Amino acid sequence: MRRERMEPFLKGGKGMLLAYDQGLEHGPSTDFDDRNIDPSFVMDVAAKGGFTGVVFQKGVAERFYSGKVPLIVKVNGKTSLPKGEPVSRQVCSVEHAVSMGAKGVGYTIYLGSGLEAEMLSEFGRVQEAAHERGLAAIAWVYPRGAAVQNDVSKEIVSYAARAGLELGADAVKVKYTGDSESFSWAVKAAAGVKVFMSGGPKAPTDEAFLEQVQGVMRAGGAGVAVGRNVWQNQDPQGMAAKLRAAIFGA
Amino acid sequence: MRRERMEPFLKGGKGMLLAYDQGLEHGPSTDFDDRNIDPSFVMDVAAKGGFTGVVFQKGVAERFYSGKVPLIVKVNGKTSLPKGEPVSRQVCSVEHAVSMGAKGVGYTIYLGSGLEAEMLSEFGRVQEAAHERGLAAIAWVYPRGAAVQNDVSKEIVSYAARAGLELGADAVKVKYTGDSESFSWAVKAAAGVKVFMSGGPKAPTDEAFLEQVQGVMRAGGAGVAVGRNVWQNQDPQGMAAKLRAAIFGA
Amino acid sequence: MRRERMEPFLKGGKGMLLAYDQGLEHGPSTDFDDRNIDPSFVMDVAAKGGFTGVVFQKGVAERFYSGKVPLIVKVNGKTSLPKGEPVSRQVCSVEHAVSMGAKGVGYTIYLGSGLEAEMLSEFGRVQEAAHERGLAAIAWVYPRGAAVQNDVSKEIVSYAARAGLELGADAVKVKYTGDSESFSWAVKAAAGVKVFMSGGPKAPTDEAFLEQVQGVMRAGGAGVAVGRNVWQNQDPQGMAAKLRAAIFGA
Amino acid sequence: MRRERMEPFLKGGKGMLLAYDQGLEHGPSTDFDDRNIDPSFVMDVAAKGGFTGVVFQKGVAERFYSGKVPLIVKVNGKTSLPKGEPVSRQVCSVEHAVSMGAKGVGYTIYLGSGLEAEMLSEFGRVQEAAHERGLAAIAWVYPRGAAVQNDVSKEIVSYAARAGLELGADAVKVKYTGDSESFSWAVKAAAGVKVFMSGGPKAPTDEAFLEQVQGVMRAGGAGVAVGRNVWQNQDPQGMAAKLRAAIFGA
Amino acid sequence: MRRERMEPFLKGGKGMLLAYDQGLEHGPSTDFDDRNIDPSFVMDVAAKGGFTGVVFQKGVAERFYSGKVPLIVKVNGKTSLPKGEPVSRQVCSVEHAVSMGAKGVGYTIYLGSGLEAEMLSEFGRVQEAAHERGLAAIAWVYPRGAAVQNDVSKEIVSYAARAGLELGADAVKVKYTGDSESFSWAVKAAAGVKVFMSGGPKAPTDEAFLEQVQGVMRAGGAGVAVGRNVWQNQDPQGMAAKLRAAIFGA
Repeated sequence: MRRERMEPFLKGGKGMLLAYDQGLEHGPSTDFDDRNIDPSFVMDVAAKGGFTGVVFQKGVAERFYSGKVPLIVKVNGKTSLPKGEPVSRQVCSVEHAVSMGAKGVGYTIYLGSGLEAEMLSEFGRVQEAAHERGLAAIAWVYPRGAAVQNDVSKEIVSYAARAGLELGADAVKVKYTGDSESFSWAVKAAAGVKVFMSGGPKAPTDEAFLEQVQGVMRAGGAGVAVGRNVWQNQDPQGMAAKLRAAIFGA
Repeated sequence: MRRERMEPFLKGGKGMLLAYDQGLEHGPSTDFDDRNIDPSFVMDVAAKGGFTGVVFQKGVAERFYSGKVPLIVKVNGKTSLPKGEPVSRQVCSVEHAVSMGAKGVGYTIYLGSGLEAEMLSEFGRVQEAAHERGLAAIAWVYPRGAAVQNDVSKEIVSYAARAGLELGADAVKVKYTGDSESFSWAVKAAAGVKVFMSGGPKAPTDEAFLEQVQGVMRAGGAGVAVGRNVWQNQDPQGMAAKLRAAIFGA
Repeated sequence: MRRERMEPFLKGGKGMLLAYDQGLEHGPSTDFDDRNIDPSFVMDVAAKGGFTGVVFQKGVAERFYSGKVPLIVKVNGKTSLPKGEPVSRQVCSVEHAVSMGAKGVGYTIYLGSGLEAEMLSEFGRVQEAAHERGLAAIAWVYPRGAAVQNDVSKEIVSYAARAGLELGADAVKVKYTGDSESFSWAVKAAAGVKVFMSGGPKAPTDEAFLEQVQGVMRAGGAGVAVGRNVWQNQDPQGMAAKLRAAIFGA
Repeated sequence: MRRERMEPFLKGGKGMLLAYDQGLEHGPSTDFDDRNIDPSFVMDVAAKGGFTGVVFQKGVAERFYSGKVPLIVKVNGKTSLPKGEPVSRQVCSVEHAVSMGAKGVGYTIYLGSGLEAEMLSEFGRVQEAAHERGLAAIAWVYPRGAAVQNDVSKEIVSYAARAGLELGADAVKVKYTGDSESFSWAVKAAAGVKVFMSGGPKAPTDEAFLEQVQGVMRAGGAGVAVGRNVWQNQDPQGMAAKLRAAIFGA
Repeated sequence: MRRERMEPFLKGGKGMLLAYDQGLEHGPSTDFDDRNIDPSFVMDVAAKGGFTGVVFQKGVAERFYSGKVPLIVKVNGKTSLPKGEPVSRQVCSVEHAVSMGAKGVGYTIYLGSGLEAEMLSEFGRVQEAAHERGLAAIAWVYPRGAAVQNDVSKEIVSYAARAGLELGADAVKVKYTGDSESFSWAVKAAAGVKVFMSGGPKAPTDEAFLEQVQGVMRAGGAGVAVGRNVWQNQDPQGMAAKLRAAIFGA
């Protein structure tokens, strides 16, 4: 059952997800250029690049999802504009995600936010609705707020991974700790929940990013949910090939 | 499907909407005179002026909608009186809008407000309810609040347009950036979602306003949602004719 | 349809409503004496005085409504004790109001309050529930809060009246502006929604109050929703007779 | 109908209720000793003492209600620990109260609290749910908060009583004003709603307390809802007998 | 009925529960090592150690519950990261807990928190949902916040226990007061509700912890809900044996 829910997004237990919700989370002028501002370009990168899943907000999924890669609909979201305690609320029902062909839903939780309780509780309902319909519930867990000094420390990243397990996520997306050994503690904390590294901003070189991915895989991670490091890349297919090698070997 | 939802409001893919919710948003003494305070005058302007849609709050629609122009019911609203973080909450159900003959619903989102999450979440529900009934969901997206220095910058307007896409709007109403080139970035960001310029306050001359409209059309915008520049105009039908020319050509 | 909803409360398009929710809104020691603290006294005044409607909170309606005058149940309420932004929340369902024989429901909106959004949204639901059951939805609209310097200015009173129209009220109760000409602007802003003057505290003389009523009627208002100026009056029936003359003529 | 709802708790129109929710409201160490900490002791006092009703929170009712005295379940509650504006929220559904054999429900409203609106609104729903099932809805009305200087003044106590009437309570529990004459104003304000005096902390002598009860009865009150003055009493049955004499005469 | 709900977790009226929700409440780096970070290790300890119940969050239950020990699902939770008034909100529905084979649900209430009302109210709904399905509702009651100086005083711990009774819990988990005599007051306050001591952080020696357990049992407590003192122990089975002796005797 559990395994079946993540199956659509895995190859040999590993996964390579293409994330593209930055238009809402960061705004088009921060992350996009003339090419990657077009969702069909990114849909195409996902399909040709051998990604095992693609992550869209509902509006992008409704218009651009081609069906060629399994779909994860991000069901909550926020912009980068508001100040104050971070909170991201549900903008898409699980039923609606199903109607668009999604095999999984993504939900961001800002651990440590003064509004953490709202997100934990809402994720609880999303997780149950997703599981009733056979969809994977994937938690983006980002500790943030006044209480969080270093959001890539071993302690904090493993806390994020563990929260994903405890709350019933099928997979969790967390930041990289910087080295494989400390990341393996987060993988252990997740206790079988698939751990994906959040790609983050474009790394200075492909190699720098691939090193992180290799560290994740050595640590027992499931793979990576990457966005900017692929679709901001001059050669997205080249980068996709390098990622496939790093994640699936061969 | 998607195209069909906006079809009632378009002619050759372009649209010219007459907005008239200023009585609630700004108050009658700010925007109205003896003529345009009367909704039947405005309904008449819409019908005779060749507008492809008219935007009313529920109460005005219930009493004055004549059926001669496709109807968009604004389903949230606020007055200009409260201080503090801007928030506009739902005042009309989608079911009720349908019962009045609406083919679309409008919803304002103040991106960047401390209460942004409430509006994103509520729009999510409105959008799904509208689509279930075949209505267009149109987002008025206005970045506002302490975090927003310049609400007509290319960055901010394109963020608004993109948010509309990501959240599943069929069309988005945003402010003009001031020039066609920067506005074309917002149109690109919307990635196929119809982009309407918000008319805003009466421009000093008709020509000044028409220049903006031409800029929008050159940028690939769908048209304009205009209010004061038409019904505050000495010659609303003259202005409507000029707008038709600017938007639909011919 | 619309007209039918207010019909029970009108005679020749005019109305004279007796309001008696001050026990909750202000407290008995502020407004009542040994006579008018008794709701049956007030019910009697309404019946004998030729009022076209009587306004009670649910508890008073349940115990004292005699059926001799059409009933409006006030479905939200607050006391005068709390400090902070004014807010009045629903205390009676529309279904319950119907079960008591009500032909209309009243709801107070404090425009300009920091909690305005809650009331606008709740009134939206009340209005739809009322209309589904054929009841009139009457909005008491009182601008209040830090943003409102003068709550009887032409601008503010007309804003209140217009808000009633836009939100779908069948009638609106607002304060008097002080003169007939400025009040006529509020009547125009309401665009056909029946405008009732809120009686307010007991005027120094009957004549002073009647002058206000005459001003309202000259301005095209529908009548008055009066409380203290009648049931605090030494001679309530005498005052009722004078009001009938001022409102219905003859 | 109305009369029938309070009938179970009255004898000749008068009532003597034993209240025992202090374990939650004040804590066991504040109010209890080795004897009265045991709910079966208090249930026994109620039965043998001729009380016409007993007031328990749901958990005590589930375990200790013997069926020998009509039951009122207190459906909201709070502890004395939190600082800030007082608020007491629903902890027991009316359906659940019915399932335990309750003939009435009690609900505390802190008039004047910054969270007054939440309680007024929730009581509105409780009252309707109770009446649908034939149960009495009894309001504990305690003005409290920064705005309330003297919570036993004639003005404030009568405001509490009146609020009970307006909100549709079948009976109201309020504090004593200190003398019969001023309390009779509160009884008048309640206009037929049964007014019970809240017993409050143990009085220095039985006589001091009985004098209050006599004052209440002379003022036309319905009786008393007493707790500590009975079950903290050395001789609860003796005190019960004195109360019966004071309330029912003979 | 009542007894039946706790029966699965008791042996001769006593219980020994293994708690393992610290991964969410404290984070893996605070409480776990390479061994006990693995839920299957803890599940195994529970089964082999003769525990009468095991406490998991939903995600751990879904993946690691073996069915060998009766299950309590913790249905609310929070992390230790947010500052401000403590609040823990529901993350798992009672229906979902049932679907995982739970015979009981656990819910934490922070008495004294500025958000106490939210938790009391939510526990009220959880308790009724649990009882409808025959599950035990177990309250973790932890007084906390500015108003609570000493959370292990006799007054505070007995308040916690009593709150559990009043709110309808079948069992309550509270901190130890430090001595058996004062703890017996808490047991009395609970009036038959099973009182479990919360194990708390690892005690310096096994004997120190066992002394507390013996104090609880002498005071009439039902047993202990222990976590770190067992699964952080070098010899969990040895410690389990000592606990069985202390709780069940022999």
